[in-house]
Amino acid sequence: MGRSPRARDAGFAYGNLPTGALNSIADVPGVRVGHRTLIDGDIRTGVTAIIPHDRNLYREKPVAAVHVLNGFGKSAGLVQVEELGTIETPILLTNTLSVGTCCTALVRHAIERNPEIGRETATVNPVAFECNDGYLNDIQALAVTEADARAALESASSHVAVGSVGAGCGMSTFGFKGGIGTTSRRLELDGQSYHLGVLVLSNFGRSGDLRLPDGRVAAPAAISASDKSVVEKGSVIVIAATDIPLSDRQLKRLIRRSGVGLARLGSFWGHGSGDIALGFTTGNILAHEEKADLVDLRILNESRMDLLFEALADATQEAVLDALVGAGSMTGRSGHHRPSLLDVLNPLAPEA
Amino acid sequence: MGRSPRARDAGFAYGNLPTGALNSIADVPGVRVGHRTLIDGDIRTGVTAIIPHDRNLYREKPVAAVHVLNGFGKSAGLVQVEELGTIETPILLTNTLSVGTCCTALVRHAIERNPEIGRETATVNPVAFECNDGYLNDIQALAVTEADARAALESASSHVAVGSVGAGCGMSTFGFKGGIGTTSRRLELDGQSYHLGVLVLSNFGRSGDLRLPDGRVAAPAAISASDKSVVEKGSVIVIAATDIPLSDRQLKRLIRRSGVGLARLGSFWGHGSGDIALGFTTGNILAHEEKADLVDLRILNESRMDLLFEALADATQEAVLDALVGAGSMTGRSGHHRPSLLDVLNPLAPEA
Amino acid sequence: MGRSPRARDAGFAYGNLPTGALNSIADVPGVRVGHRTLIDGDIRTGVTAIIPHDRNLYREKPVAAVHVLNGFGKSAGLVQVEELGTIETPILLTNTLSVGTCCTALVRHAIERNPEIGRETATVNPVAFECNDGYLNDIQALAVTEADARAALESASSHVAVGSVGAGCGMSTFGFKGGIGTTSRRLELDGQSYHLGVLVLSNFGRSGDLRLPDGRVAAPAAISASDKSVVEKGSVIVIAATDIPLSDRQLKRLIRRSGVGLARLGSFWGHGSGDIALGFTTGNILAHEEKADLVDLRILNESRMDLLFEALADATQEAVLDALVGAGSMTGRSGHHRPSLLDVLNPLAPEA
Amino acid sequence: MGRSPRARDAGFAYGNLPTGALNSIADVPGVRVGHRTLIDGDIRTGVTAIIPHDRNLYREKPVAAVHVLNGFGKSAGLVQVEELGTIETPILLTNTLSVGTCCTALVRHAIERNPEIGRETATVNPVAFECNDGYLNDIQALAVTEADARAALESASSHVAVGSVGAGCGMSTFGFKGGIGTTSRRLELDGQSYHLGVLVLSNFGRSGDLRLPDGRVAAPAAISASDKSVVEKGSVIVIAATDIPLSDRQLKRLIRRSGVGLARLGSFWGHGSGDIALGFTTGNILAHEEKADLVDLRILNESRMDLLFEALADATQEAVLDALVGAGSMTGRSGHHRPSLLDVLNPLAPEA
Repeated sequence: MGRSPRARDAGFAYGNLPTGALNSIADVPGVRVGHRTLIDGDIRTGVTAIIPHDRNLYREKPVAAVHVLNGFGKSAGLVQVEELGTIETPILLTNTLSVGTCCTALVRHAIERNPEIGRETATVNPVAFECNDGYLNDIQALAVTEADARAALESASSHVAVGSVGAGCGMSTFGFKGGIGTTSRRLELDGQSYHLGVLVLSNFGRSGDLRLPDGRVAAPAAISASDKSVVEKGSVIVIAATDIPLSDRQLKRLIRRSGVGLARLGSFWGHGSGDIALGFTTGNILAHEEKADLVDLRILNESRMDLLFEALADATQEAVLDALVGAGSMTGRSGHHRPSLLDVLNPLAPEA
Repeated sequence: MGRSPRARDAGFAYGNLPTGALNSIADVPGVRVGHRTLIDGDIRTGVTAIIPHDRNLYREKPVAAVHVLNGFGKSAGLVQVEELGTIETPILLTNTLSVGTCCTALVRHAIERNPEIGRETATVNPVAFECNDGYLNDIQALAVTEADARAALESASSHVAVGSVGAGCGMSTFGFKGGIGTTSRRLELDGQSYHLGVLVLSNFGRSGDLRLPDGRVAAPAAISASDKSVVEKGSVIVIAATDIPLSDRQLKRLIRRSGVGLARLGSFWGHGSGDIALGFTTGNILAHEEKADLVDLRILNESRMDLLFEALADATQEAVLDALVGAGSMTGRSGHHRPSLLDVLNPLAPEA
Repeated sequence: MGRSPRARDAGFAYGNLPTGALNSIADVPGVRVGHRTLIDGDIRTGVTAIIPHDRNLYREKPVAAVHVLNGFGKSAGLVQVEELGTIETPILLTNTLSVGTCCTALVRHAIERNPEIGRETATVNPVAFECNDGYLNDIQALAVTEADARAALESASSHVAVGSVGAGCGMSTFGFKGGIGTTSRRLELDGQSYHLGVLVLSNFGRSGDLRLPDGRVAAPAAISASDKSVVEKGSVIVIAATDIPLSDRQLKRLIRRSGVGLARLGSFWGHGSGDIALGFTTGNILAHEEKADLVDLRILNESRMDLLFEALADATQEAVLDALVGAGSMTGRSGHHRPSLLDVLNPLAPEA
Repeated sequence: MGRSPRARDAGFAYGNLPTGALNSIADVPGVRVGHRTLIDGDIRTGVTAIIPHDRNLYREKPVAAVHVLNGFGKSAGLVQVEELGTIETPILLTNTLSVGTCCTALVRHAIERNPEIGRETATVNPVAFECNDGYLNDIQALAVTEADARAALESASSHVAVGSVGAGCGMSTFGFKGGIGTTSRRLELDGQSYHLGVLVLSNFGRSGDLRLPDGRVAAPAAISASDKSVVEKGSVIVIAATDIPLSDRQLKRLIRRSGVGLARLGSFWGHGSGDIALGFTTGNILAHEEKADLVDLRILNESRMDLLFEALADATQEAVLDALVGAGSMTGRSGHHRPSLLDVLNPLAPEA
């Protein structure tokens, strides 16, 4: 199987900042992504793992933040991120009803690497996010197992597949086939190079609402009767990674701008959509067992935030289109079908 | 096995309001509680289920709110309660590492009763709360199964056992054996009788910090060397139920006062403690598939809130003491031991 | 002086819902708006008053909510709206440094109508919002007096002037002259007609970032060197009014979508911008001295929220363009100049 | 006039940590406090100023946080502190209806020291907090002028007067005369000495609810009929200062524990009380015009937070008693009277 087309192959690019070498979240040094994709009968689902760095995450916690754009969602682990401003496990993405299984898988994964958890030290906070893939997937089957979650974790690499892979397998976006998309931006700060990467699990938006950058509306040829109710079951998860040293407050301000990218695409953060963002930085790591009373941290000069805000809005917008461009059409549960954006895009393309 | 002693048997009673007939959360009409207790080898854990009413919870959602006093915790389902102001499943309490399993059990439980979930209608938001019982329990064993969660749900009745039962089995409080406690208050509004009930999963507080109502400090005879680290792993969950018609905002204001009850007992909502409250009312039920565009609701005259605030603070304080009085001493994992408050209380008792 | 042109005169209209008869916030029955405009020497500022209904606001409080998109702002009164979900005074808009004066004016205004304030009953919570008009206005002059605030209140009517009036006098938007804009939408619920109105004080956005609905970018002919710093001093205030019965939680969800309208226009809610929304409904009024313990309220069937979300996003977008279209070019402090959007729009217009 | 008695003179002391040399918020190096007290006819009010450090506050902003325990209050400036995590003016405390005047005074004060405000740079965010002194003070008179606010600022020193001074002049607490109280704690971190100071404006609590540390209830000899309504108009402001390097998130966690101190005293954070805390640290200062893109910061090892939490709870509790002990009895508006706690305390005193 060849590599999926990317948003930029279809001419979608935003902003003046250059991308990283891979144009993916893995441009942030140390970040890896793995997928486990399940396609079988009426099953169209999976798990995607984002691993922030290569060392022991429980011992070396990246500073992090969460932001809820619209909270019709079942993601887990947000309470502690909000309180402490750190994550301590990989991040798992999956379908709505498999959050529990993914949490348990993350707990076991952490205990294996840190046998003192729950005995000589504190417990562990798994972070698992979800969208509802029930249109194409038999979500009631609860097909995702702990082994699947582990497979996603173990397959993580700096090569990030996009489209209908991992948790993105059965997702839909604006009536098209959705899924996983990613992009990155490179920035210079104090003469050094840094990256901001975004990965989305894209499963939101009503058919007919997608606006392309040139103002055109892109809609599936036939909008099915059941599409209206499907909107009610959407969601989008935005994971932002960076090596820029930020505080948790700054990360929270940053990922709030994911809403800008979504709005530009035609979303109004619908009532039934669980639109949630998580951001982390490898530029500030807090030790699980810090010896010193006081700890040094670096943060961004606050007046530079606009540079990042714009980059995050652009990257969210591009990452969603990356998911749409990367995903081929799919037929799933009960014959439900989602066309690919590419199917309607090509005839629209005005140039060459 | 006889009935456990209650807080009032030890002389602990707060406030001027009368209790309900059972002095438990089940005084709120329709509320039931079930326990599944696991004691085996180094296992001291379990599940507690609170069922808000006897009908289909997914179809008839109680108005609800959550409040995080200190977010060092792993409870799940809070995002959607915050956004929509309702719950749609029973509430499960368990140990920290079993939240995932309890979420999955609640999902299956809801699907059985509502086969359209994830197919013709939206998904479902399980609410599961936790404390860390790792001092007495081998929490790494992940002993709780989906069957255990179901057993807790199925055993629910209006008789609420307290002390070392259900999720309370392995919990500790101020160096003593903790667990499940409950109490209620009866109020008159517009000439009608209503109830406010509280159930706590009590697992917080440093040895030596417990203050009895008369100002005395109650501490275990010997404070073990490992107690200091145990504090880091505490938590307390406060579930408030009422049939008073309140809005979600009013419920949120109400349950915030659980912090008052905890502070009076000697807690300062420690850094490592996941102190979380959930409140719901059966006085306002929202239909899953409402036909009308506009819906009638009743709320409390806001200037009456003080009556409820005081009742909730009193009830939280009493419910924790109810857990302490109800729990006998226990020896668990690796010979770890927690004395009962009653062991030190009796010699302290000045009267008769 | 003739009536200012409106957004729809320039061809800007969004969404499928009809507008109200006035296409303004005053389409919500009872809502009135007044302006006091100050132009003198280097002074380009003023006050705008929104009066939710014609009765005693302190005695009959509209249900309300606030939402902060980006909190680089100095608006006052939000804490109590957040806690109690009501407002109890008119809403004043002004320049950043005149918030204190407007608060005091609102206090006196309330005391005149309710001499028991601070004596036999509670105090009063003035709500005053601001943007920084310092580019065109000598904001250091603190030119707004209590008398000016009162003049705005006393001039309130259902005729809503737009453009460079009231608090909008000295405002800028995307490098153009900004100011006050408004629009409304009419909705049918349970067979009855309701309105949702929006009024903006528009003072945000970088030169060159404005995107028209057809995807074109509209920028001033010459972007001045000082424009970059001006962005740092921007802000936008969105006031949403409705007679649809909503709870405070529903209002908060609703006004959050003002961010969608702003994002579609090209904003990313810049670091230095105080982007704040307030929503109120005359469909739910709470009495200052309610006799009953329990009070009836009506709320919207939550699954109908998308209808309102979309309307609010559309209305915010149109109201900003209404401000831009309504405002003629202006020269102010130190010869600073803002062109009108109409100056660059006309040559752009492709048709007829 | 001699020095007012302090809480420790009456035997009230909490916790194991030593106090600073002055046992006041001014033990934090650089912190100064000034009062302007207004007593004339029916006027019993004033202004208190807290100045975080001796340099240019607008140019060198202390990291800060706010927390609202109960938001029935009219304090101003919180939105920007929440967003940016800094303060940039002194903090003023006053009566409820004088917040506007104090904001304007802070604006002028900042402009004098920074004439570029609103012209070449951004505007300024005044922070003004309030309690309702309307029981003893003719609050409708709006007696506080900008000159009074300035007098408070100009009189600031490291000598902190307590009791019925400044903003505390007309305040009431648990039916007794309230006002200004302060205390401090000294802590060692990484071998260096730091201070945590608290200053309260104490005006909360129902008559009969005050609990002394030994469990005794202290109530005025005669509880007046109008006391019940007065409760509705209470409030307490807690200002915490430290030189410990903390992040804004850590400061927010810290000041949340002010609720613990208040609860121990007998408060349940009543419905009508605006209970608000602000914390700042001189250990992390952010420059208004930072040249570097990345900035170094120090924060506390998160696992040390309990030390501070306990200190803050203790200090809040002691500072309120410091206000009560420091305040003599007072007769004010319409002959309203508040006894001093000392009046009833002495007969209660069991020893010597």
